[in-house]
Amino acid sequence: MNPPNAPGDNPVRTGPAHPSVLPTCAAVERDPRAAERSVDFPVSVVLPAGGTGERTGLQTPKQFCSLLGRPLISYTIQAFERVSWIHSVVVVVAKENMDRMMDIIQRFQHRKVRAVPGGSTRHRSICNGVLALGGGDGEEEGERPVAERPKVVIIHDAVRPFVEEELLYNIAIAAKEQGAAGAIRPLVSTVIATTSEGFLDHSLERAKYRASEMPQGFTYDVIYQAYKKCTESDFEFGTECLHLALQYCGTNAKLIEGPPALWKVTYKRDLAAAESIIKDTLSRSACVITGGSEPAAILADALHKAVGPLDMELGIVPDLMGVNSGYLFKEWNFILISVSQSGLSEVKTILTHLEAVNRALLYPVVIVWVHLNVSDELSVSGRMAEPGAIMDLASAAKLRNILVFGIQLHQSKDAGRWERSVLRVAEVASALIRGRSTALVGQILQA
Amino acid sequence: MNPPNAPGDNPVRTGPAHPSVLPTCAAVERDPRAAERSVDFPVSVVLPAGGTGERTGLQTPKQFCSLLGRPLISYTIQAFERVSWIHSVVVVVAKENMDRMMDIIQRFQHRKVRAVPGGSTRHRSICNGVLALGGGDGEEEGERPVAERPKVVIIHDAVRPFVEEELLYNIAIAAKEQGAAGAIRPLVSTVIATTSEGFLDHSLERAKYRASEMPQGFTYDVIYQAYKKCTESDFEFGTECLHLALQYCGTNAKLIEGPPALWKVTYKRDLAAAESIIKDTLSRSACVITGGSEPAAILADALHKAVGPLDMELGIVPDLMGVNSGYLFKEWNFILISVSQSGLSEVKTILTHLEAVNRALLYPVVIVWVHLNVSDELSVSGRMAEPGAIMDLASAAKLRNILVFGIQLHQSKDAGRWERSVLRVAEVASALIRGRSTALVGQILQA
Repeated sequence: MNPPNAPGDNPVRTGPAHPSVLPTCAAVERDPRAAERSVDFPVSVVLPAGGTGERTGLQTPKQFCSLLGRPLISYTIQAFERVSWIHSVVVVVAKENMDRMMDIIQRFQHRKVRAVPGGSTRHRSICNGVLALGGGDGEEEGERPVAERPKVVIIHDAVRPFVEEELLYNIAIAAKEQGAAGAIRPLVSTVIATTSEGFLDHSLERAKYRASEMPQGFTYDVIYQAYKKCTESDFEFGTECLHLALQYCGTNAKLIEGPPALWKVTYKRDLAAAESIIKDTLSRSACVITGGSEPAAILADALHKAVGPLDMELGIVPDLMGVNSGYLFKEWNFILISVSQSGLSEVKTILTHLEAVNRALLYPVVIVWVHLNVSDELSVSGRMAEPGAIMDLASAAKLRNILVFGIQLHQSKDAGRWERSVLRVAEVASALIRGRSTALVGQILQA
Repeated sequence: MNPPNAPGDNPVRTGPAHPSVLPTCAAVERDPRAAERSVDFPVSVVLPAGGTGERTGLQTPKQFCSLLGRPLISYTIQAFERVSWIHSVVVVVAKENMDRMMDIIQRFQHRKVRAVPGGSTRHRSICNGVLALGGGDGEEEGERPVAERPKVVIIHDAVRPFVEEELLYNIAIAAKEQGAAGAIRPLVSTVIATTSEGFLDHSLERAKYRASEMPQGFTYDVIYQAYKKCTESDFEFGTECLHLALQYCGTNAKLIEGPPALWKVTYKRDLAAAESIIKDTLSRSACVITGGSEPAAILADALHKAVGPLDMELGIVPDLMGVNSGYLFKEWNFILISVSQSGLSEVKTILTHLEAVNRALLYPVVIVWVHLNVSDELSVSGRMAEPGAIMDLASAAKLRNILVFGIQLHQSKDAGRWERSVLRVAEVASALIRGRSTALVGQILQA
């Protein structure tokens, strides 16, 4: 058995807690070092999200593409919302996507965010966001009193959802000290200069160069002055904020190496990669609920042994009352073992609990209902009585982002057969939890 | 209905045809332009695959990581084997992986390939491969008569499986004309130079530079001379063959822009991305087999309408005899509609056909067995009689890389209910074909 509040180690893993609990509290609880990272100056974020996503080969701009039912940009916003010392996030979107963005903010209950309209280029959009933080409405240069402006502005891409608090902290601190800071990564490929005829001119020595990534941080003054002084040509053709800070403010940015997960979701394949990362982090643990019955507890212990090779952590509890209610938070999935003919009421109870704490707001939750048939005869009549009822229940739950699947098994007295059944329950449950297929909800599988 | 031999447009889509048909013939059939690409000089390939895959975060080197049951490197080898004008492929592997490599070559029946032991660095490994093509054994410089040496050597990465014939052709032709040629891609990130203290020194103008990718091509003479003349320091620290050709042979390589799919599988997330691409290409079409019965044909037509939004092409046939046997080749999946109580024999027939043509050698094939219950009563006795039998059949088929799933539905006289059932069959079948979950084989799902 595992404590219901074992700290996770990955930001994706820590989903929303109780709606009355701010995400930031969850972040502190999750990461013991988070509390040490005190930032005693105001930090805000600008998220340019005006791209049209041509490179993904998809019609929807990539920041609005859905991963497990939620747009990519909402994951990125969440990465900032859970950081306590980040005050606000300005998302800059193309005017034609403003309604879509407002809908996302409302639907996923983002609290620190406002959207402002973008410009015709990346720099114009970022500039709008910076001006909006300064008190402008995103299009004019009206300024807020100095005391109300953020000290540091972090600029990030809407399509890099896996940014972690530690890097944001390092960027913010370095930006405050140096005026500017940016994340870098080693070069993946050799960079070469080409002749105008398309031949190799020379190749760069890889060790001397880095790829400039996001996030980047600036004091408000540096980024504001950089945009105030830069040329129309910069606005039109430039892309790199660090370059503007150097050219117009003489600020050499501090460079900080970021992790591989910083990568930018660019192509359709990157969406699959991002979804795979999210699914992995959502599928690491399941809470087995036995209802207190002995056969169920025996099966739960057998499952605990069987899932070992499947790389899934199991917590076993009789119910979700009292201290066990901790399993309702974080990313636990649920395996409900039922020995009665009609265990649907137990599934309904969990559904009620999950909805009460708004658990499925940001991520789909999986409930695998395991029906253990303890009667002696392996007859048709011993089978689960209500396939139609679980399908109806699951179809309704799916609309609320909870995915219910069924597995039935017969408690065999033959040890070998029992062992194979348990192994199959573990494999099937694991596949259902990992797969999160909305097309398969309400199905009853055999173990 | 669709012709069984509609040409595909993606190399992954065209799997192995009949074992007696060389992959190269399939490639010509697939791509009408392929026949025009005549290459009248010998071309061979060196695939360095000595990497240890540290960056994936996985224990297995990434070129040996499994995608749908087959190591990544086998996909890359296949990409070359299906090109008729490529004579041979030398894979360079670390000595400790030689047995593993030989096993892959045998298991997936690769014909043009031999493996030679790698060196301690990338350049040493590639050099071994080049020497092996020249007649050396990979460690000595023994040379073959000039006439037997390839005119052009293409060097590629084992972890870039999606390379297409068109690019290989362009590289080979340009290499023959210019002495050297290499694939490039636009830079994804701005490249910056750093100071020794970790600050921004300057950023490069993105438009002037490119990322150097693979494949690269060289005349045998150029690459041989480059390795003969280069220094120990080049062997130890260098990585870029184009650079050696320029420095030691004065050859400015012709640069050719490649497609995004050239990307290098580097991190664990890239494996998920690659698998997703492969699954997409394997899940675009299904052959519906009606057995000639009228209710089955009606269901097949209804499915044809229902899968429209699911982006899957359906071909409908009564059986796989005669001209319809074309469906046994290429990437067709199978939806077998059965109205008899026991349709298992029909599933067995398809299994026999698929095994006879060795269809599942390189990719898992999906068979969805749809049991249509046409009796009037929706009773328990009307259900599929042999869930145990299909599970046993499916477990055995899984070992031969064929994934069998079941769906049952009742033919309702209520039009609305029937429509919902058909839609569910389409959704569930599509999810099963796309998901290719080995854990769920043999299950019978409800529509």
